[in-house]
Amino acid sequence: MIRKTRLFTPGPTPLLPAAQFAMAAADIHHRTPEFRALYERVLSQLKIFVGTKNDVLLLASSGTGAMEASVSNLTSPGDRVLVLSAGKFGERWESLAKAFGCQVDLVSVPYGETFSLDAIKQAVRPETRAVFVQATESSTGVRHDIQAIAALLKSTGSDALLIVDAITGLGTTHLDVDGWGVDVIIGGSQKAVMIPPGLAYLSLSDRAWKAAETSKNPRYYFDLRKERKNAQKGESSYTPAVALIAALGAALDYIAAQGGGDLAAGRDALIDNAETCAAMTRAAVKALGLPLFAPTAPSAAATAILSPAGVDSGVIVKELKRRFAAIVTNGQGEMKGKIFRIAHIGLFDYMDTIAIIAALEQVAAASLNLPDFAFGKSLAAAQQVYAERTGQATAAKTSEPEMVHA
Amino acid sequence: MIRKTRLFTPGPTPLLPAAQFAMAAADIHHRTPEFRALYERVLSQLKIFVGTKNDVLLLASSGTGAMEASVSNLTSPGDRVLVLSAGKFGERWESLAKAFGCQVDLVSVPYGETFSLDAIKQAVRPETRAVFVQATESSTGVRHDIQAIAALLKSTGSDALLIVDAITGLGTTHLDVDGWGVDVIIGGSQKAVMIPPGLAYLSLSDRAWKAAETSKNPRYYFDLRKERKNAQKGESSYTPAVALIAALGAALDYIAAQGGGDLAAGRDALIDNAETCAAMTRAAVKALGLPLFAPTAPSAAATAILSPAGVDSGVIVKELKRRFAAIVTNGQGEMKGKIFRIAHIGLFDYMDTIAIIAALEQVAAASLNLPDFAFGKSLAAAQQVYAERTGQATAAKTSEPEMVHA
Repeated sequence: MIRKTRLFTPGPTPLLPAAQFAMAAADIHHRTPEFRALYERVLSQLKIFVGTKNDVLLLASSGTGAMEASVSNLTSPGDRVLVLSAGKFGERWESLAKAFGCQVDLVSVPYGETFSLDAIKQAVRPETRAVFVQATESSTGVRHDIQAIAALLKSTGSDALLIVDAITGLGTTHLDVDGWGVDVIIGGSQKAVMIPPGLAYLSLSDRAWKAAETSKNPRYYFDLRKERKNAQKGESSYTPAVALIAALGAALDYIAAQGGGDLAAGRDALIDNAETCAAMTRAAVKALGLPLFAPTAPSAAATAILSPAGVDSGVIVKELKRRFAAIVTNGQGEMKGKIFRIAHIGLFDYMDTIAIIAALEQVAAASLNLPDFAFGKSLAAAQQVYAERTGQATAAKTSEPEMVHA
Repeated sequence: MIRKTRLFTPGPTPLLPAAQFAMAAADIHHRTPEFRALYERVLSQLKIFVGTKNDVLLLASSGTGAMEASVSNLTSPGDRVLVLSAGKFGERWESLAKAFGCQVDLVSVPYGETFSLDAIKQAVRPETRAVFVQATESSTGVRHDIQAIAALLKSTGSDALLIVDAITGLGTTHLDVDGWGVDVIIGGSQKAVMIPPGLAYLSLSDRAWKAAETSKNPRYYFDLRKERKNAQKGESSYTPAVALIAALGAALDYIAAQGGGDLAAGRDALIDNAETCAAMTRAAVKALGLPLFAPTAPSAAATAILSPAGVDSGVIVKELKRRFAAIVTNGQGEMKGKIFRIAHIGLFDYMDTIAIIAALEQVAAASLNLPDFAFGKSLAAAQQVYAERTGQATAAKTSEPEMVHA
């Protein structure tokens, strides 16, 4: 049969056609009024999307570049920092902090879990300069409670900077950046904003900018002070990724249109969209009889699912690709072979979500040996969730409720 | 929620990305060796796709243009012709034949049905010059038995030309054009070949070319004799639709790739693909409790479904669009408001098909009042059909078979 390749990965995510067209048309030079107008527009749109009054900066790098920039600009060798690690990207914070000479304290929880506030409270020292954390940990499908962590830091009287990798968190979970006191927030292009990889963006609080003035780390490409000075003139320090920036502008226009012209409302609709796709997927997976990997704090960016005992999750990933050209991701790090992940971040809709659930049912039928398997069971569960969440369930007669809720 | 617009219409059909790229890149002049090389390649690919040893001609027109060309080139005013009409496109044959002064005999059956061979036999006269028919009637979802009709004509000793509108038949049903003795076969670009509207193609048997020499109808743009002479030199008579021809080349390459490099095998795989999507849809619709409009001779191009009593089918069409951005078509002609049609012709895969079935289930839940409705029931039926047709059902335990086959 025809198989159309479809990404169900938590980055890169499916591309927005309008952004693809803008990217293809982006034949402009970056030191011109035309580019400056584009750049200024996109930077101001990003402020609304991120939800901050602070400047947002764009970097021609992957998200890791912005993570590095937040370490190299805001810490100095020998600084004491606290890393909250619950997966591969938490570990990346640890590696980055060590690469720039920080003394790292670690609150680490097993993959699939989130942090206890008590453990964080105990790990914060008077001399802690910065706390690094993910909003959502893409490698495990867990959402961390940034609001509670920020409040905890305030309550301890710590003046540590709170630095949040929200690369898969932005557009999938509500973040009141300024209100909660998040000092640095970081995003990436190949995530909720529906364009290819190659851009990172971040914003810094006033406190963070102050820290940037005193950092003793070497930095050049990622010197945020220079970048901000240039950004305020509509310029980038080095050659910007013009086509991606044009694409980002188109994507943010699309997201604004989802909110009736209001970008913040459009972002909230995008979060709600991811939550609905995630809720459908969780209900379906449960009905199928597969355990969720992160049942207590699931993120809406991606759902991580445990493979049945004795089945390498790579088999499920491979079968979904071979039979349906549906690209889902295996576990990362120590979870490789144990879990697989279906994404909801960005340009996924009901039709995408119900189709990947159906394909998973087909793979389960042929390749997994699940007790009480029946075609339609996991789909019925997802259908019910969708109908309830969209308020369309009223007319539905569920004559076989035991099937629907199995 | 995000809603990605998706066509489930029997033309235009979803565009092949590789064809879209070829179309965007088609910045060449049509009186150059570059264009001639493209044109000759596409014309020879089309011969394989159509399955004929005869020349295939391309026209910058809709399919109706090629229908008109077959009337204007092969009949003369006053000729007696037989039109087999079972829907809107059968009626178009009648209108065209009358517009060019033919005396029209008609075998007409109600929408949703196909012809009895006996009725055709009785309608063929010794002086019948041509018989006009559809391979599949897009307005009703019916497949006509071209093989049997061709054999019948031979058996009667008639030397009437058999002229087949296969605009939605090519790529959805097997047609042995030369072997059966089809004299004219007609296709369109926005159908199984996955590109936008704007091109028609057709081929004529030796008998048909002889008739073209004696026709007394006026013709200029659609003069097929001139078009063939030019085509044999790699030229078109008038300015060709260059970008669509480039797209068509890319699409035929894609179809060939589906057959491991063999275009005929790729076309057969495309037919099989449509048949699987159609079989899934029919099983789902039956499980939902909606009657198929053409149960006895369903085409694989599109499935026509009767709306429940008292419900205008336009409501279903509208709700699928409003809630899911899924574009299906209402009935045409006298069936408007009574049926709706879901297409399988061209670039549809399992994921598309299961998703439209799921969306239809949602619309049924909220807007139709079907007895014994349950979420998952129609999906289970489609899942079972897919698994059986792809030979993947062996491992499936169907613990609730009454649900699956409901």
